[in-house]
Amino acid sequence: MNRREFNLALLATFPAFYLPPHQSASQIRVNGLRLNQHLSELAQFGKTPEGGTNRVAYSDLDLQARDYAMKLMRDAKLEVNIDAAGNIIGKRPGSNSSLKPLMMGSHIDSVPQGGSYDGQVGSMGAIEVAQTLSEKKIQLKHSLEVVIFQNEEGGTIGSAAISRGLTEKDLQVVSNSKKTIREGIKFVGGDPDRLASVVRKKGEIASYLELHIEQGGVLYEEKIDIGVVEGIVGVYWWDVTVEGFANHAGTTPMNQRHDALLAAAKYIEAVNRVVTSIPGRQVGTVGKIQAFPGAFNVIPGKVTTSLGLRDLDGSKVQLMFEKIQDEVRQIESSTGTKFEFKQVNVSKPAPTDPRIRAAIGDATKELGLSTKLMPSGAGHDAQEIADLCPIGMIFIPSRDGISHSPREFSTPEDITNGANVLLQALLRLDEW
Amino acid sequence: MNRREFNLALLATFPAFYLPPHQSASQIRVNGLRLNQHLSELAQFGKTPEGGTNRVAYSDLDLQARDYAMKLMRDAKLEVNIDAAGNIIGKRPGSNSSLKPLMMGSHIDSVPQGGSYDGQVGSMGAIEVAQTLSEKKIQLKHSLEVVIFQNEEGGTIGSAAISRGLTEKDLQVVSNSKKTIREGIKFVGGDPDRLASVVRKKGEIASYLELHIEQGGVLYEEKIDIGVVEGIVGVYWWDVTVEGFANHAGTTPMNQRHDALLAAAKYIEAVNRVVTSIPGRQVGTVGKIQAFPGAFNVIPGKVTTSLGLRDLDGSKVQLMFEKIQDEVRQIESSTGTKFEFKQVNVSKPAPTDPRIRAAIGDATKELGLSTKLMPSGAGHDAQEIADLCPIGMIFIPSRDGISHSPREFSTPEDITNGANVLLQALLRLDEW
Repeated sequence: MNRREFNLALLATFPAFYLPPHQSASQIRVNGLRLNQHLSELAQFGKTPEGGTNRVAYSDLDLQARDYAMKLMRDAKLEVNIDAAGNIIGKRPGSNSSLKPLMMGSHIDSVPQGGSYDGQVGSMGAIEVAQTLSEKKIQLKHSLEVVIFQNEEGGTIGSAAISRGLTEKDLQVVSNSKKTIREGIKFVGGDPDRLASVVRKKGEIASYLELHIEQGGVLYEEKIDIGVVEGIVGVYWWDVTVEGFANHAGTTPMNQRHDALLAAAKYIEAVNRVVTSIPGRQVGTVGKIQAFPGAFNVIPGKVTTSLGLRDLDGSKVQLMFEKIQDEVRQIESSTGTKFEFKQVNVSKPAPTDPRIRAAIGDATKELGLSTKLMPSGAGHDAQEIADLCPIGMIFIPSRDGISHSPREFSTPEDITNGANVLLQALLRLDEW
Repeated sequence: MNRREFNLALLATFPAFYLPPHQSASQIRVNGLRLNQHLSELAQFGKTPEGGTNRVAYSDLDLQARDYAMKLMRDAKLEVNIDAAGNIIGKRPGSNSSLKPLMMGSHIDSVPQGGSYDGQVGSMGAIEVAQTLSEKKIQLKHSLEVVIFQNEEGGTIGSAAISRGLTEKDLQVVSNSKKTIREGIKFVGGDPDRLASVVRKKGEIASYLELHIEQGGVLYEEKIDIGVVEGIVGVYWWDVTVEGFANHAGTTPMNQRHDALLAAAKYIEAVNRVVTSIPGRQVGTVGKIQAFPGAFNVIPGKVTTSLGLRDLDGSKVQLMFEKIQDEVRQIESSTGTKFEFKQVNVSKPAPTDPRIRAAIGDATKELGLSTKLMPSGAGHDAQEIADLCPIGMIFIPSRDGISHSPREFSTPEDITNGANVLLQALLRLDEW
């Protein structure tokens, strides 16, 4: 029995964290080649001619991709189950059964005509971390749950199912697959009649970590390796209606018009002006518009449009909304129109945990990578899980800031970096 | 034989203009009560709950209304025919067969969910004038043609058929009735295979007069009885496309966006600014808009919109278009987007004849009515007929300037005034 054989034999008898003396925990790394290979294999399920991925939740391709992911999880020695909500959960026992589980994960469903990185990097990254732990024979104190949440793109359905629980109304929503959420859950192997069983209690989970592509262009532009997410912004949506008066576009003098589209144009400019006039990283978007009747020869009498505001700080969103309202009052009086705002979505900001941010920051530093503290402008499963436990998120750069598009891309190096940060942060969290 | 019987007997033998000695031509008036009664009866065909008229060309209701109009024309002693293009033409012979016919008319089809005055006032007014001539036993030197043009609202189809002639492409257009123009022409009793027979030669008609509601609010606002139309404005339409770049509305910082809808908003404001910064009565309208993909959470990557410019002076339209282009160049560079303009319609301005304008003005003056010289912002059948002969148009006030709406309204007094001006102007034209 040589030294190596001795160590391996010793290792087999140790229930807890063990590494050969020549390798400390901080030195272990994921297998970047394998991770990128898995991502590339996963991308085959729903690959589009444009090079993206079209794999909406509850589609046949989604089912095939889930099977593939479960095979990888089993290879990583995880004990794999599908919960009643249709989430895939791979478990690994810890050495101290009194500790709550560490959770990490993401999703593998895509938007229609989406890319091959959103959700997928975090999912394959979490599995790769589990595989690395298994190969390096690292026994964590905490048990570990690697989760692939179902239907993130349809409104973080799987993660909502374990945090707030799904309502009958949620289950009736028709998803991109044309199946209702209820049908979809059955389709992927869940049981919509047993959803109560999956709802976790606050404090039941030790922490949640998620690796994700940034989906914006900040890291890419600034050539920074890793984004440490300070929180997931609150998302506030309003339906906006502008009432003017439809009239003949040829016979109505300019000064006798109540042009709802001209008013809407002034409003769209005002939103941009208000949002960009305040320091910070808040965003505001008008994404929808329709004019009625919508003809060359009729002055639009009505316009339906939208407002979307996002920030880490809910009170700043409130401030922007009030400033926009002030501008709107002036637009109403100058154009002879009437605006109505109807709030249709509020998801409150979800700050990440300062200690987890520190753990991610430390891990990144030790890996010799550059970091930036930044908000997540997009919603994520982590946002739902924030109601249950402290959360942390790790971002890697998105080329040109493009996401939800076949042109979505992150480099293999950045993906490997992200997974190594996930691994090293997880090891730190295990020490608490 | 008393004096009256003598006069009547004498009248029957006279081929030319005759009036009893106690009544000069300038003193005769239409029967306003009857005219308004006819308008009210006509409005029954397609009456809507909102009090408007829904009677698109080539519909069953259009057919019924045409039958009603032809009955009125026969009552007015007109010899009624439907030409191969489906226009209703009521003829009255003149005393001098070497003179070209005087023409007057309008249309009785409506826009979908339209009003009961547009086209209808001029059609019933022309028939009332013919009826009055008949009752007063007035023999004109010129022959008279009272025309009800088919499908004005679908693009002055009937009048185009006799001026420029319809093309095969025109005939394939699907109208509001869901019938093609070809099918519609057959439906109303025309013969689409004999369309060449209806095209008139330039100079074949002495003149064309049309009474119409203003469809704008100028006369109503200024409390003026009659508008003397100085010309029908040219109508210039463009399809406008704005190309930006679609991206995630949450993750894309404000300064990294290429927001096609923000660019379109700036463009809509620029159109309004350019059009209102030049003195005159030109109008400019953006009536259409669509954003792609058109979602709360995506920055619009593409917008399709429109531009409509109208003025009596084509060179002023050109000037406005150039100024708008200048503004667009700046918007492109400030928003990182690209605009494209594709002209889809040009109808050149159609000035009215100065002598006819004078005849209308003189008639109005003698009737003790106030007048205003004004452009017609809307297109009319007269615009097509302007290619064939001198034209003139008489406007009456539209309440609140509303048209193409169930709320379209003109008072019975204004309608009667308009028909009296039409009658008296016609008598003047007959003197030439």
